[in-house]
Amino acid sequence: MRVVPWVLATSLVLALPLHALAAPLQAVQRPTTIPDAAMTRASQLREQALASNLGYEITESLTTEVGARLAGSEADARAVQWAQAKFKELGYDKVWLEEVRFPKWERRSEHAAVLGAHAQRLSILALGGSPGGTVEAEVVRFADLASLEAAPAGSLAGKIAFVDHTMARARDGAGYGMGSRVRSRGPSAAIRAGAAAFLMRSAGTDSHRNPHTGITRFDEGLTPVPSAALSLPDADQLARLVARGPVRVRVELDCGWNGEALSHNVVGEITGARKGGKADEVVLIGGHLDSWDPGTGAIDDGAGVGLTMAAGALIGQMKQRPARTIRVVAFANEEQGLYGGKAYAAKHLGAIRKHQLAAESDFGAGRIYAFRSGAPDYAQGAVTQIAEALAPLGIAHTPTEGGPGPDISPFAAQGMAWATLRQDGSDYFDYHHTPDDTLDKIEPKALAQNVAAYAVFAYLAASADGDFGSEAKPVSPPSE
Amino acid sequence: MRVVPWVLATSLVLALPLHALAAPLQAVQRPTTIPDAAMTRASQLREQALASNLGYEITESLTTEVGARLAGSEADARAVQWAQAKFKELGYDKVWLEEVRFPKWERRSEHAAVLGAHAQRLSILALGGSPGGTVEAEVVRFADLASLEAAPAGSLAGKIAFVDHTMARARDGAGYGMGSRVRSRGPSAAIRAGAAAFLMRSAGTDSHRNPHTGITRFDEGLTPVPSAALSLPDADQLARLVARGPVRVRVELDCGWNGEALSHNVVGEITGARKGGKADEVVLIGGHLDSWDPGTGAIDDGAGVGLTMAAGALIGQMKQRPARTIRVVAFANEEQGLYGGKAYAAKHLGAIRKHQLAAESDFGAGRIYAFRSGAPDYAQGAVTQIAEALAPLGIAHTPTEGGPGPDISPFAAQGMAWATLRQDGSDYFDYHHTPDDTLDKIEPKALAQNVAAYAVFAYLAASADGDFGSEAKPVSPPSE
Repeated sequence: MRVVPWVLATSLVLALPLHALAAPLQAVQRPTTIPDAAMTRASQLREQALASNLGYEITESLTTEVGARLAGSEADARAVQWAQAKFKELGYDKVWLEEVRFPKWERRSEHAAVLGAHAQRLSILALGGSPGGTVEAEVVRFADLASLEAAPAGSLAGKIAFVDHTMARARDGAGYGMGSRVRSRGPSAAIRAGAAAFLMRSAGTDSHRNPHTGITRFDEGLTPVPSAALSLPDADQLARLVARGPVRVRVELDCGWNGEALSHNVVGEITGARKGGKADEVVLIGGHLDSWDPGTGAIDDGAGVGLTMAAGALIGQMKQRPARTIRVVAFANEEQGLYGGKAYAAKHLGAIRKHQLAAESDFGAGRIYAFRSGAPDYAQGAVTQIAEALAPLGIAHTPTEGGPGPDISPFAAQGMAWATLRQDGSDYFDYHHTPDDTLDKIEPKALAQNVAAYAVFAYLAASADGDFGSEAKPVSPPSE
Repeated sequence: MRVVPWVLATSLVLALPLHALAAPLQAVQRPTTIPDAAMTRASQLREQALASNLGYEITESLTTEVGARLAGSEADARAVQWAQAKFKELGYDKVWLEEVRFPKWERRSEHAAVLGAHAQRLSILALGGSPGGTVEAEVVRFADLASLEAAPAGSLAGKIAFVDHTMARARDGAGYGMGSRVRSRGPSAAIRAGAAAFLMRSAGTDSHRNPHTGITRFDEGLTPVPSAALSLPDADQLARLVARGPVRVRVELDCGWNGEALSHNVVGEITGARKGGKADEVVLIGGHLDSWDPGTGAIDDGAGVGLTMAAGALIGQMKQRPARTIRVVAFANEEQGLYGGKAYAAKHLGAIRKHQLAAESDFGAGRIYAFRSGAPDYAQGAVTQIAEALAPLGIAHTPTEGGPGPDISPFAAQGMAWATLRQDGSDYFDYHHTPDDTLDKIEPKALAQNVAAYAVFAYLAASADGDFGSEAKPVSPPSE
């Protein structure tokens, strides 16, 4: 398929009018702006949201009443029911479900132990997508992924590969790039070298006996092997033991793929003002409803669901609705491959221009410290106005940092305008994908700041005169 | 049996000489003092210990090579072998084992789950001493132990009692008084009210999904019921669910008593100087060798064993030995009822006067901040000299705070002189008795400070002119 790069295609179209040659490109499109009255109302909304506990209450409800909700599980179906009921309870005008289908992976149990003279248990979690199986073999440690990838074919025959990469802590989660790469590419690299199983130091920044799970994949043509993550103290322990001499370990996983599952994106709308005729356009915010199974999915991503539901509800309670509709989406199965986000993009591609601007929260509930939008230049005046309304929340306008959230990224890749509200993720990877992802890790006041930011953002985007550039692009969606 | 209170008995004896009536009581005994030369050498020893990593290396060896070592388990036997070998490797002059027998308790597995509309797993650990069994029943929450104890007989028939007491954080671990009382008395109180099982919020100060185990007991005449601790986030969760309406929970424990076990106190000695004729007297320091099974027993009590072994070894390396022998004891089975400490007291009662002074480390590896000794007044001059030598380590002399460590307390109750070096336990109960009690929780420099303190203490006590008052008292040991 021939792909026209987006920047080039846009330039060609914009270049057509002759007067554009003498003026900045964005001048061909009337600049998008936000009326003063809306800016004033956004300030009030911001203060009201800061004083509200609604985001926390919704997150508490989801994580307590449903708890863990692995995509495709019985609890996932309960979460869908919960979201539908919660939208209605919060006064959303329209609430509906959209089907999402995906392969179902199940975790039943996992055990690991050092054998022999230093016999002891190791704390592990199977990686999502791993097959089950029991392997007893010697462990070969690799300091990083590159070392494993450099292992000659057959060199790990009958062994367990152990990648001991230590993920770095960072406010923006930058260390997760390599951390998650070890998880997604390590198993295939291990198999290519002949390994019978794969272990990794969890992609995390904590020091607790709670391993970090997460999805892995096996390259085509390879026979998957049992793959699991050790907690960080267990990785330390295994590294110390390996340094003392040969170590045999037993890895026992009972897990695997089991047919197809049906879940749903759950959508709630606060309809735009009747006057103005823009209620068919939407500002989309949301998070994902599924979680990994060991914790209760509080920071990942109960908070994202709770805070965007709350932001929409607070806008719904305003005397004067914004012109456009606020659409809140609780996406299905983000964790195993953005199934909900891809299904949404596929279903709504024809309405891409009706999607004014979108932002997803999927990075916990730390205070938001930065904002940007990938909107075209002609809309950056309005983006700057939104940034001004966010500034009292301690949020900086950082025009070049960050991209769209995971579930909106398939649609953003097809041309939907997006923004990002960046949470402080300094401690996000202490809990992410572990049993420790529970409600107590959320600071209610920080969550209220998040609600305020999303409410202000959504309200102003829905009140703008002009658009943020959503338009179908002739490019293929990135393969996630 | 008739028991003469110790204070009264002592007063009677001391009152006998007539001149004592006009002078302070301690004047009847020559004051114990420490020679200046010993004080000087103690300063050198202190600096040498501070610069040494030996305590950490020993603790690393135990927690890595043996790992968890539940009293009576195969790993416990390996720990005994490890301690014996390590004493020899460290150059101890004499090393031997002393038998300790006790009932053997085994943990095999434990599971708990909320049933019904809010179905989800709960993270629990069986309490030591709990029987196995599966119970499905409604949960009744009690805010504290007193509320459960006030529940009328039969009022909890067929229910699960849940005590939700929150333990307070404190440098000296004061909150553990009530925390451990819930654990030791809660199950019996639950049974008296008719409960079929007992759950408690862990006696801990953390916020992780790692429950705190620990021994419990059942009062005579009661039929034990399955008893377990919830992690703190799980206790939060259960409390939130109970607040919403009736909650049924399934508790499944596979654990219980299984015959008698044999383990050993492991003793190592640095023999006192040949000259002086006091080498048959000992200064006793130590920790306990056993641990709970979920962690690797690093702070409880690998550190205590490692730091006292190191302190003795450093004294052994001095050019000039102290007059008395340094005896280091790695006690067996402290966790389930001070079996090692009681066996030691029973075996060595006849030699109580040969025990110059004793101190045990069993409160982690936080920096030592306070020192005291329960020695009689005539020895407090020497105690003050020891305190002066400890002061550069940031250790205060607190003449009224704290008592003897657990394993020496049975012997101390019978009259052995004791001292205490109090560790900062602010974070001790974040990890105590959990899977999270692992080596990474120990700060090597803090551990070196501990080694320095114990080395200085033991060296000076072993160099004193005069004694610290060990003498068999006509009292029964406290029932632990």
